[in-house]
Parts: sequence; C-alpha cells; structure tokens
Amino acid sequence: MSTKNLLIVSPIKDAQRAQFAATGVNLVELDDLNHRVAPSAINIMYGWKAAIGEQLLAAPQSQLEWVHAISAGVDSLPLATFAQRGIKLTNAAGIHAQAISQSVLASILYFVRRLDIASHNQQKQHWAHHDDQTPHVIDDFKYVIFGTGHIGQQIARLLKSFGGYTIGVNTTGHPAEYFDDTISIQSLDSRVWQADVVVNVMPLTDTTHHFFNHELFDQFAHLFLFVNVGRGPVVDSTSVIDGINSGLIQHAALDVFETEPLPADSPFWHLPNTLITPHNTGVITHFKKAQAALFLPNLKQYLTDGTFKTNQVDLTKGY
Amino acid sequence: MSTKNLLIVSPIKDAQRAQFAATGVNLVELDDLNHRVAPSAINIMYGWKAAIGEQLLAAPQSQLEWVHAISAGVDSLPLATFAQRGIKLTNAAGIHAQAISQSVLASILYFVRRLDIASHNQQKQHWAHHDDQTPHVIDDFKYVIFGTGHIGQQIARLLKSFGGYTIGVNTTGHPAEYFDDTISIQSLDSRVWQADVVVNVMPLTDTTHHFFNHELFDQFAHLFLFVNVGRGPVVDSTSVIDGINSGLIQHAALDVFETEPLPADSPFWHLPNTLITPHNTGVITHFKKAQAALFLPNLKQYLTDGTFKTNQVDLTKGY
Repeated sequence: MSTKNLLIVSPIKDAQRAQFAATGVNLVELDDLNHRVAPSAINIMYGWKAAIGEQLLAAPQSQLEWVHAISAGVDSLPLATFAQRGIKLTNAAGIHAQAISQSVLASILYFVRRLDIASHNQQKQHWAHHDDQTPHVIDDFKYVIFGTGHIGQQIARLLKSFGGYTIGVNTTGHPAEYFDDTISIQSLDSRVWQADVVVNVMPLTDTTHHFFNHELFDQFAHLFLFVNVGRGPVVDSTSVIDGINSGLIQHAALDVFETEPLPADSPFWHLPNTLITPHNTGVITHFKKAQAALFLPNLKQYLTDGTFKTNQVDLTKGY
Repeated sequence: MSTKNLLIVSPIKDAQRAQFAATGVNLVELDDLNHRVAPSAINIMYGWKAAIGEQLLAAPQSQLEWVHAISAGVDSLPLATFAQRGIKLTNAAGIHAQAISQSVLASILYFVRRLDIASHNQQKQHWAHHDDQTPHVIDDFKYVIFGTGHIGQQIARLLKSFGGYTIGVNTTGHPAEYFDDTISIQSLDSRVWQADVVVNVMPLTDTTHHFFNHELFDQFAHLFLFVNVGRGPVVDSTSVIDGINSGLIQHAALDVFETEPLPADSPFWHLPNTLITPHNTGVITHFKKAQAALFLPNLKQYLTDGTFKTNQVDLTKGY
C-alpha cells in the first residue's frame, strides 16, 4: 500500500504529530500544501476547513478518501458530495459528552435549586429565606432528552445518579443506556408532554431543522426548563422567546442559537429566566490531546483494513 | 407503662397526627399546655422551641425524657442540661442530605462550568466564546469534604458520579462510604492542602467553632472554591472575606453565616466571585411528611423498649 498523505488542518501538538507519523502516514502541514504536496495528493484530512476542503475536492484526480471532523455536528460539511465520491467521514461525537453533560446538569441544578433567584436577591442584598420559592430537588421532575447518543446518555446517567426519571427521544424509540424509557420522535405522546425539563442534543439535519417550534412547545403541560446544547437551528428562536415571555416555558438554558455570535441587539440577552452561555459547553481544556486520542485508533485501523474503529458518520443520516 | 404525653411543638398535618396517635401516645397541642396538661407532665417534645423547652425544664418534677429536634444541627439546644438530667435527644440528621447535597453540586457546577462568568457576560450582552475562561470539568479537581455523615456522603456520592476524587475529613479518619480517602481532623496533611474545592458540612461544636480561619485557609495551595452549608460560626467570617478579596480563595458559595439573616450592610453581599443563598439549601418541599416519617419509627421503638432506631444525638459530642 502506498504511503498516505495526511493533511493537518486542525492544530495538533508535537507529541500527537509524532504519534500520527509513527503509523506510517506522511504528515502534510498546511504550509506545505500547493508547494511540496499537491492538493490532489492528499488522502486524509485531519480537521475540516471549508476553503481548504473545497480546494481538495476541486483538484483534478483528487485522492481525498477520508475526512475527520473535530466536531460532533457535521451539518456544515458537503455530505452529499462526500457520499457521491465515496469519501468517508468520521466525527468527534463523544469527545464533548463529558463537558456538555456537566454543563447541562449545571443548568438544571441552577434552576431546580433556585440559584437564579438567590443570585437575583443577592444583587439586591435581599435575604429571602421565608418566601414561597422553596428549591426543588432533581427527583421532583421528569426529564425528556431529545437525542440518545453519547451526550444524551451521559446527561441521563448523571440525572439518574440524582434520582431523576429520564425519557429519551430518538429516531425509532430503540432502547438506550441510562434511559428509563425511550420514544420515537415520530410518535411523541403524553410521556413527553408531561415533561418538566426538556433537553435538546439532537444533531441538525433536514428533519430536525426548527423541530422545536410554537406548535411543539404548545403541547407541553408545564415546562419548567428547556435546555438547548444541540444546534441553534433545531429551535425556531421566536418560539422560545414567545414561550418564555408568555410563561409557557418557565426557564431556559441556551448554549446555541440560530445566529452566532448572538448579536448585541438580540432579544435573547434580555429574556427573563434565561441563562445564556456562548456556545462553550462543549469546549474542553485538553482538546487537542483528546481529539488525537480519538483519531489515532481510527487511523491505525484505517491504514490496516480501510475501516474505522469508531465514529464513522452515516452520510445519508448526517450523524 | 403509663401513657406518654407527646407535645407537638413543630407543626404537623392531620395524617401525621393520626399516625403518632396510633402508637398509643397522648398528643398534646401547644394550646393545651398549661391548660389541659401541665408542663411537668410532658414526656416527649416533637420539635424544640427554646421558650417552651425552658418552661418544661423549669417545671418542678418535670417528666421530660425525650426531645426530637427537627434540624440536623442541635448546637442551640441545652445539651449539658439534657445530659445532666438524662433527657434523650434525637435529631433530623439525614433528612436534609438530598436537598443540601444537590445544592452543593449546583454551586460546584456553577463555578466549575463558569456559569458565573456566563451570567456576568449575559448582563453586558457580551458573547465570549474565545476567551481564556474555558470551563473546567468536575474531574479536573480534588474535593475535600469536612464532615462525612449523611450529607457529606451524599455530596461525595454525587461528585464521584461525575468522576471527582473525594477526600473526607472526620474526627478519627475512619473510612466513610463514597469517599476515596479519609483523614482525621487532628492530622490534616498535604492531601487536604492540595484541594481545589473544600466543602464544610461539619456541625457546630466547641471544637469546630471558627475552625475555618485565616491560619487554616493560608495553608491551601490553590483553593478554587469554598462551600459552606454547615453552620455559620464554624467559619470566621473575616477569613473568607479576606481570602476572597486577596484571591487566596478564588470563589465561595455560602449558605450559612455567623449572623443570619445577613444584615443589609454585610460585606458578604458585595464580595466578588461569591454566591450567597439564604440558609435554604436544606429546605425541602414535603418537610412535615419527611420529618414525621423519620420520627415515627423512633417513637414506636421508644415506646416499646426506650431505645431509638436512628438519629440519637451523643450529648457530649453534640451530633
């Protein structure tokens, strides 16, 4: 088998560079592209940047065969082109699960334990022990998580350690670890509409675009909290804004938005009972190391037999 | 055995009143005291109020033999008098463990996942994805919990479900469930001083008064967060205020204080990087029901053989 050219698009450290090189691939740095190595000669992309990717795809007789995306969501990549040309795609699903699930628990506990009210009273130097805002506990509530992959499972696992009852929503209603119950997204029923806390971790696909909208939110009986750490466009922004303002949605914790960065004049900034994080719940400290640790076993196996150990994306499903 | 008179000091509901009465005790309401029943005739107090308790203790030939306190901490009760007169004391240790441990995790996740910064930026309509404030994850840190009883164990259990390493501090260093390691309070060492997060859930006793003071805090190498959900006077207020202001203590989550309610001019209100809750982390929604469920088995056993199933306080230790 000829030596494969691996283009390093996403930054890595020397330790990881050495690990990659030890597999026998030829590492190509971005600076070397078009100079020492022709775009058509690249076999593997570690990381995706649209301008570079398009250049490789446009090269006559391109040998691009595998792209590794360093994100879980791959909705911004040209999946149809990949499918048509037989280019394989792996993603980083799972790598953010720990960080995101901890942020989701942070947001849930923030509202359930009434830290929002405590924080508000603190600013007014108001000691409010004897009001009617007794903190809830996690197990007072029912949790419905849309998306039962790595991230959804970690959220469910943590909720269960607090005694929470968890329902997962996925494509077919197939069982998933750590969920007490699962339901198909095609046949949502009262088990969902009775949820107190709804968490979205679904990927963005044609099916999920604006899945959360006025019509959907209207069906919930008493939605204490809506958390979105999936993708912004899975939610129609106006439905959350209207829902919070009308009280239909009592609280919201939002990490992703249809427009990011959130513009300074966005109505989200001033929405009451809402916690905004800047699409950073998945950011992790040792990202390069974790990313390389996910990629390396795939690289070794791919060089051996052309298959992947983990994280290959189904190009028709989009995740 | 003659019928015991049980004085209902803490409010209960009719359902609980019926359960208590079914054991064969004679229930005495506060309104009946001094009218239908003499203070000297009361055998058992359900709940403690100082004025009423003192009246019973002062009654000639008082028959008071058992007091059930509806709190975990009993530092405000006349323990020496109880010991001297052979009056038994039970408390409600454990009843608040679920609520308090969830609040402790809420506070830890709030600072670890940088919701404090997100919340601050939200008020300024500032989207700060690319700053140097990457959220931590729970397992980046070492946790030392002072107090390894019901509450400490629940905190440790939850931290472990997030992957946290937990050290417990107690009187002798005896092992305690859910702790990776335990240390005697008499022989603290570098395992403690290397803590990132310190949680106090110790009761207030002569030994623990102002246990957390300037001298103690000075020994920590990098204290990311100090949480106090135990008792206010276990901590010398000025040591936390000075610690936060100097940066020795990076963040604090405080539910209890030396003076409560916190006066409007208290420096705690304006302390940076500090989250204040109004001594409500232990407040629970179905308190009367939970309290009675704890008391009832003790009442049944006590009427049978004069002993308790659970929660008898050691009057010399104070917990």
